Amino acid sequence: MSDIPYKFYLDQKDVPTAWYNVRADMKKKPAPLLDPATLKPVTADQLERVFCKELVRQELDEDNAWFDIPGPVQDFYRMFRPSPLIRAYFLEKALGTPAHIYYKFEGNNTSGSHKLNSAIAQAYYAKAEGLKGVTTETGAGQWGTALSMACAFFGLDCRVFMVKCSYEQKPFRREVMRTYGASVTPSPSMDTEVGRRINAEHPGTTGSLGCAISEAVEAAVTSEGYRYVLGSVLAQVLLHQSIIGLETQTAFRKLGVKPDVIIGCAGGGSNLGGLISPFVGEKLRGEADYRFIAVEPASCPSLTRGRYAYDFCDTGKVCPLQKMYTLGCDFIPSASHAGGLRYHGMSATLSELYDQGVIEATSVKQTDVFEAAQFFARVEGILPAPESSHAIRAAIDEAKRCTREGKSENIVFGLTGTGYFDMYAYQAFNDGKMGDYIPTDDELAASFAKLPRIG
Amino acid sequence: MSDIPYKFYLDQKDVPTAWYNVRADMKKKPAPLLDPATLKPVTADQLERVFCKELVRQELDEDNAWFDIPGPVQDFYRMFRPSPLIRAYFLEKALGTPAHIYYKFEGNNTSGSHKLNSAIAQAYYAKAEGLKGVTTETGAGQWGTALSMACAFFGLDCRVFMVKCSYEQKPFRREVMRTYGASVTPSPSMDTEVGRRINAEHPGTTGSLGCAISEAVEAAVTSEGYRYVLGSVLAQVLLHQSIIGLETQTAFRKLGVKPDVIIGCAGGGSNLGGLISPFVGEKLRGEADYRFIAVEPASCPSLTRGRYAYDFCDTGKVCPLQKMYTLGCDFIPSASHAGGLRYHGMSATLSELYDQGVIEATSVKQTDVFEAAQFFARVEGILPAPESSHAIRAAIDEAKRCTREGKSENIVFGLTGTGYFDMYAYQAFNDGKMGDYIPTDDELAASFAKLPRIG
Repeated sequence: MSDIPYKFYLDQKDVPTAWYNVRADMKKKPAPLLDPATLKPVTADQLERVFCKELVRQELDEDNAWFDIPGPVQDFYRMFRPSPLIRAYFLEKALGTPAHIYYKFEGNNTSGSHKLNSAIAQAYYAKAEGLKGVTTETGAGQWGTALSMACAFFGLDCRVFMVKCSYEQKPFRREVMRTYGASVTPSPSMDTEVGRRINAEHPGTTGSLGCAISEAVEAAVTSEGYRYVLGSVLAQVLLHQSIIGLETQTAFRKLGVKPDVIIGCAGGGSNLGGLISPFVGEKLRGEADYRFIAVEPASCPSLTRGRYAYDFCDTGKVCPLQKMYTLGCDFIPSASHAGGLRYHGMSATLSELYDQGVIEATSVKQTDVFEAAQFFARVEGILPAPESSHAIRAAIDEAKRCTREGKSENIVFGLTGTGYFDMYAYQAFNDGKMGDYIPTDDELAASFAKLPRIG
Repeated sequence: MSDIPYKFYLDQKDVPTAWYNVRADMKKKPAPLLDPATLKPVTADQLERVFCKELVRQELDEDNAWFDIPGPVQDFYRMFRPSPLIRAYFLEKALGTPAHIYYKFEGNNTSGSHKLNSAIAQAYYAKAEGLKGVTTETGAGQWGTALSMACAFFGLDCRVFMVKCSYEQKPFRREVMRTYGASVTPSPSMDTEVGRRINAEHPGTTGSLGCAISEAVEAAVTSEGYRYVLGSVLAQVLLHQSIIGLETQTAFRKLGVKPDVIIGCAGGGSNLGGLISPFVGEKLRGEADYRFIAVEPASCPSLTRGRYAYDFCDTGKVCPLQKMYTLGCDFIPSASHAGGLRYHGMSATLSELYDQGVIEATSVKQTDVFEAAQFFARVEGILPAPESSHAIRAAIDEAKRCTREGKSENIVFGLTGTGYFDMYAYQAFNDGKMGDYIPTDDELAASFAKLPRIG
């Protein structure tokens, strides 16, 4: 092994104490959120009916590059941060590649993913505002678990709407959330108006993140002392998740390594945005150049096959509209095993960066993803989440390109989480019973036809 | 927070490169293993029919204090070692105790526990000897998972007999093992003679570690190119697990802290023995004094209520006899949720240390254990395995004693693993449906009456 250690942890003194807001360095900013009733840019007042005040301030602030991380959030981060930057020596050897592969591993915490980075921040602001509790949605269950941990820490009530297909595939996720004191409802449920409507329109639906968001928002605005919190898509979430990229950036500086390719899986964009933000900032400021690759499932390809247009963030159309790459808010993706990536849209910030050509995107098939996941588990000793494994697939493909081209590029990817609660998915793969669903052009065209006509 | 960091990792250069054999420092050694046919001390030749050669050498060596860790094992250790020594600031605060609480966290790897420390060593020696594969038993599934990971790394076949009650409680464990290429059979099975006999004698039995060991041994000795490996109880396992205690000892030295009380859960003794060995060595050499506490389930209390006598290590009576604290090899403990602690006996080394008064023991009830587990999960952010939670329970009780006595003792415990695959147990607890089974004196007396009469 070379001078680079297998695992690199920052010293506590080098851990970032502020989050980075990439929009401050974007010349062309993401388009503003629109109010669904007036189709005019939403005001802070309007957003505060749904979201916590400080989070609204963060959401709307496109100018400040840095936000101090509150002390209690920094304290909580010490439970699981800094996360290690791992040099994938064993993977490199197994691939026989001249590439140097690194991954930032965010799975070493009980929520099993990077989601805890934003959950604890959002719970902190909710508590500081004097709220009783928060509502949210969860797909794979990672965000719900993270939020239930964060709420337990601050003594907040936590109500989670969990996408039905994940609720059924991952019964143990529910128990982890309950162990942390949260209540968990499969979505679409009969507990909300929008849930009842979606169930009536799509009988037997296995749900989607878009549906669950609508239900959680409704539950928040109809309950005294509650606000809604969201684990991805929003600018505030990318802000909190920038801790991933900031640690990675500092670690590479300490190691004297410059990454060439930075890869992340992309559902709503929280992990990818968090990982790449500080590097994107360098690129936008002309200080360095990097390739950024967003990896999405072929079953839900918002960047690679979607439209860049204003759309609703949720299926129930109760949330503001956002300009983003979208498959249409009525698009309900197939019940794939990467529940955390089953979102019809994409972070507005990432969408704008993609539209400007700052980042690339690719899509990968589910079975190819699990092949990479199993291979990675065996050689690197970490059982990855299906979502994270999209990034593994792309990293392996990039490493193979390096082999063909004889290049020693530095490839880094985000290993966002572990797969301990995804064993039904692995079982399907182990039994050779996993399929691939890819939407047809006609299906997408039908969905695009329903996009709201704005701008 | 004080000068002590929340999490302390050793630098790679300080990571131990040799294992420590506590028997070298014991004036009175553990009694020798006896051959079941002749009742004479077993020879290396006899053991080599079942075990790998180098492991037999380690098993029988009572004199050498140090064994070099082979290079490939050191390389593999880098995937998940050093493990962090964590100062439980949040737990201390929640308890309002003057005690300082630390824990050595061994759960941050895909096997979810400390078992990987010995699994990779045993797989390495099996591979070095040119074997095709290994057989083993697993209780909670932690050992089987660890061994399947280790075997995948070295390209060895891995056949696991899994205690039936855990096989049913933990279906996802099986899938993790399969993902790593292992085959998994619920025990007692109909695949072995001893399994068929146990099934006939105890229809509907949910199995035990003792049964599963018998089956795995039979499968090994009847298959060309296979040997049996064991995840606990044996001296060789304590040797490999000493890496836990050695890292802990080095970390405390670097921090300038002297622990007062060292606590570990005890099933077969692998974690406890590994954690305390180097400190026991100091105590035996008169260099320092410590309290050591073995924590066992009230449902399977081998140290606190067992007899110190020669007994079979397995229910099928095919293995050598060992002098140990035992409940009798025919004792089948209740189907508790701490499958990893459901063993009728205890490591001979730990038994001898307990008999000499070097270590203490206590037993705790299952419901009290889960109460501690849930409390710990909420304040420290780690969802503990049921086995590990026995140590948490005892550590909290010791901290409360410190509060009553106004003492600032340094308490350290082994947090051996995570509970992600134990959610049925948490569900039972969350639903208020968890019971406590404690064997009666009559039940134990009946079991003791069947102990072999030796010495």
